Amino acid sequence: MRGLAILGSTGSIGVQTLDVVRSFPGALSVIGLAAGRNHELLARQAREFRPRVVSCQGAEESGTSFLPPGCQMVSAVEVACHPDVDLVMAASVGSVGLVPIMAAIGRGKSVALANKEPVVMAGEVVMAEARRRGVSILPVDSEPSAIWQCLRGEERDVSRVMITASGGAFRERRREELAGVTPEEALRHPTWRMGRKITVDSATLMNKGFEVIEAHWLFDLPWEKIDVVVHPQSVIHAMVEFADGSVKAQMSSPDMRLPIQYALFYPHRARNETLPRFNPVETGALTFEALEVDRYPCFRMALEAGKKGGTYPAVLSAADEVAVELFLAGAIGFTGIPDLVEGVLSRHDPVSSPGLGDILEAEVWAREAAYAWARLQKRML
Amino acid sequence: MRGLAILGSTGSIGVQTLDVVRSFPGALSVIGLAAGRNHELLARQAREFRPRVVSCQGAEESGTSFLPPGCQMVSAVEVACHPDVDLVMAASVGSVGLVPIMAAIGRGKSVALANKEPVVMAGEVVMAEARRRGVSILPVDSEPSAIWQCLRGEERDVSRVMITASGGAFRERRREELAGVTPEEALRHPTWRMGRKITVDSATLMNKGFEVIEAHWLFDLPWEKIDVVVHPQSVIHAMVEFADGSVKAQMSSPDMRLPIQYALFYPHRARNETLPRFNPVETGALTFEALEVDRYPCFRMALEAGKKGGTYPAVLSAADEVAVELFLAGAIGFTGIPDLVEGVLSRHDPVSSPGLGDILEAEVWAREAAYAWARLQKRML
Repeated sequence: MRGLAILGSTGSIGVQTLDVVRSFPGALSVIGLAAGRNHELLARQAREFRPRVVSCQGAEESGTSFLPPGCQMVSAVEVACHPDVDLVMAASVGSVGLVPIMAAIGRGKSVALANKEPVVMAGEVVMAEARRRGVSILPVDSEPSAIWQCLRGEERDVSRVMITASGGAFRERRREELAGVTPEEALRHPTWRMGRKITVDSATLMNKGFEVIEAHWLFDLPWEKIDVVVHPQSVIHAMVEFADGSVKAQMSSPDMRLPIQYALFYPHRARNETLPRFNPVETGALTFEALEVDRYPCFRMALEAGKKGGTYPAVLSAADEVAVELFLAGAIGFTGIPDLVEGVLSRHDPVSSPGLGDILEAEVWAREAAYAWARLQKRML
Repeated sequence: MRGLAILGSTGSIGVQTLDVVRSFPGALSVIGLAAGRNHELLARQAREFRPRVVSCQGAEESGTSFLPPGCQMVSAVEVACHPDVDLVMAASVGSVGLVPIMAAIGRGKSVALANKEPVVMAGEVVMAEARRRGVSILPVDSEPSAIWQCLRGEERDVSRVMITASGGAFRERRREELAGVTPEEALRHPTWRMGRKITVDSATLMNKGFEVIEAHWLFDLPWEKIDVVVHPQSVIHAMVEFADGSVKAQMSSPDMRLPIQYALFYPHRARNETLPRFNPVETGALTFEALEVDRYPCFRMALEAGKKGGTYPAVLSAADEVAVELFLAGAIGFTGIPDLVEGVLSRHDPVSSPGLGDILEAEVWAREAAYAWARLQKRML
């Protein structure tokens, strides 16, 4: 039995990871669960999976009486670093995963990475630490998982990677109409059911920019070898073109349990009858369009920040996190998201070749700058 | 430099193989060329590539004065078995390749297999000999090459292989209209430019049945794991579904030089700027349809013969070869092809677990039975 810790166990990926654990009794032992404020769901998960340790926010006030006996309340870092943990599923939302992931890598744990912000913020630092400790970083997001699957058996001779994008919820909307988009509309993704942050990031295509940055770091690909192509059906998750011009594509129904279990059981492909099968005849036509980068300022800024490097990507990620939070709270409009991110990036005084400390500092600065930008905008209205 | 022999050097695949050789100077040395009756083209090839040995039909009458000095006229078996040959490109049309292929395998040569009839006829015998000699059989046909590429790095855990079919030249024609199809119409393939025999086999879908039999033998796949799906654009050449439901597809522009060079340079992917690149945005919609097996009696008979095994597949292949020849000569109609094949198969007295001798004998019997069937039909009209 492999020992598993899940960071973000009550989120969308966390819940689906536990569903995969349930489908393969005896394969994975849940050692630790880390969650946010959903104590009720965490308590149910703890009763079912009997982890040794859990972590959550707000336990100081609420106490720990909701936990089953024998289950200890610790920090997220302690959940990730418990000695019986072999593999950490990093499925938190946003930057909060960075410190526990780095701690787990430092202890020699493999990391299944669903939470892409830490690698966006600190790709160079995370990958250097993983190399130093000989630890694997296993992609869980469907697009990098697709690249990883297509590269299997032939990691050399890659000439280009094509990440597909559904085009977001507003692909067919005119740009002038975007200012009035409501949180409810932005949360309706055309093909995937996901958490709130990533669904809004998908609508702005910030998420696609993050995926390019993630692919750059995870697969050690130069920027010019990573393309994005719009594929509204979200059936093909990524394509890899090899030196001879041959292209491999990975396809599957949009169900995150597939990339989750691929990462958990790699290199073994586990049979799971509860997963939907891909049927080409029922799927309908697969289409592709060029990405109109001009429509998606968040995507453009993400690529620019990724290429500039230093602390820019951490600032990008933190500013976006605040922007999405403010948008979902009704404090800024949909087009306020790129405006805020741009405002914060333009004020940033970058550090090159940053260490983890520099990155965390830039992140704190960017959050404060983001709130300040939003307050200023409000006052000016 | 690897030593190369090409069986069928003046045919479509042979000519394209030499084009690949030309694109990579210094990589491959052409040791031998075997052709049919196109002496003029063979002479030009011999002058350009300076093989040590050549073989052709009709040299007894025409003499060998068309050959450049130092180039020796031998048999096709001697071309394939020349001591300096490392790899044989088997690109003859029909059953004629079987004996040289078996001889080459017996001498420990690897075989790149574009000529599928020998494996259709004698799959068990060919693969057993290849195993015994530790020799690789490398697929060149685009569909088995696509399967091979998708299996790379993970040959276990396959749950299903889907071979795509363009649906043939007459996919949208009513069945009653097929009897009147002319050779000229049958030779117009919607997506590929190929030799005459394979183009007619594509129109009847006999070729797709052959590919299923070929995949069964080359990849050791049980029949129930091989499906065919209609994909009129011929962009995806095959898909492989793994145990977890994930599907990998191989795509490329319809240019045979890609699978040819993949087989010649395997496991290396050689950069070739003369090959067209696949551009998903320019490609247009990719669609899939179920194969209406009832429309394609040749496909159904091929699968039945494959599953029955013994000498049935050899009879199927030989009868089809005669039927296509008679159709192209105007002696029988398009729907006469399946009628003839069915007539011959129904008269066959099979041998189970046949050796090479039994297979060659069944082939001779089937050719005679096919001509006899055609004569009988003519007399009855």
